Amino acid sequence: MKKSNWLLLTTILVITSAMLFFAFSYKMEVDSMGDDITAIKEVLNQYAVGVNTGDFDLWISLWADDGVRMPPDAPAQIGKEQIREGQKPGFDQMNLDITIHSIEEAKVYGDLGLTRCTYTLKVTPKAGGETIIAMPDGKALTLYERQSDGSWKIKYDIFNSNVPPK
Amino acid sequence: MKKSNWLLLTTILVITSAMLFFAFSYKMEVDSMGDDITAIKEVLNQYAVGVNTGDFDLWISLWADDGVRMPPDAPAQIGKEQIREGQKPGFDQMNLDITIHSIEEAKVYGDLGLTRCTYTLKVTPKAGGETIIAMPDGKALTLYERQSDGSWKIKYDIFNSNVPPK
Repeated sequence: MKKSNWLLLTTILVITSAMLFFAFSYKMEVDSMGDDITAIKEVLNQYAVGVNTGDFDLWISLWADDGVRMPPDAPAQIGKEQIREGQKPGFDQMNLDITIHSIEEAKVYGDLGLTRCTYTLKVTPKAGGETIIAMPDGKALTLYERQSDGSWKIKYDIFNSNVPPK
Repeated sequence: MKKSNWLLLTTILVITSAMLFFAFSYKMEVDSMGDDITAIKEVLNQYAVGVNTGDFDLWISLWADDGVRMPPDAPAQIGKEQIREGQKPGFDQMNLDITIHSIEEAKVYGDLGLTRCTYTLKVTPKAGGETIIAMPDGKALTLYERQSDGSWKIKYDIFNSNVPPK
């Protein structure tokens, strides 16, 4: 084979490999985006399972170590330890009942996932007493960060009511 | 030059080019991330400028067409037209005074930017009347989406109070 043919062959090989690589990467990305959306929706589902079964360990495990919870009418809880400290008493003292009515949007931007949902929260004191509708018609924006092990954890959760307080 | 030397030279050239390309891309990415954070902070600044000068056109121009505004105690406003309809009367009837006290976090995830800030909002009826502190101690999570022209627009804005209502 002549030098020029050899160079041509090498060039074609490099270009074809690059094209295959990018096509494959793109397909992987499109496939994994569907998987990622399924994964973040499952985190939101497990959030509700943790709340409704009173399983605090499950619920807190869904948060990133540097997660930020931004509840209405109270300061932000910054980091898993503040979230644990703030929310453990509620799990201990109340039977919680959350219903996620609708996931209005679920998206992934690289390593950040997002859901926008509507929900209702009812609480009943374990010691006895009436059930209180703590949030009759709530909306939440929840952001999930992809972790180094590939799992998704809650990074930000902020929520408020769709209706004025009574 | 021998065939084998030719092949070696081509291979070295391809590998060196690839390394330079990735190093350059990485530097571009790190540089542009700083620029992006400056850019989203400037959108937040313009948000306050629009509010405080009563410049509704400026303020509404900061939103993405499919932006979602999620105010407390009211339903989400979905899309720029609902945001315009919901917020124009406030600009028309009130002198608004927002102070952004602190940008606690500013980050960029690919084409999504994020700020978490604290703020105070006061409103005074233009027709006359007392200034009301509408939000004495608020917190907001604001997400910005990179547009096809490279600008950043507000995609989601959700906020609530750090303190219970009086």
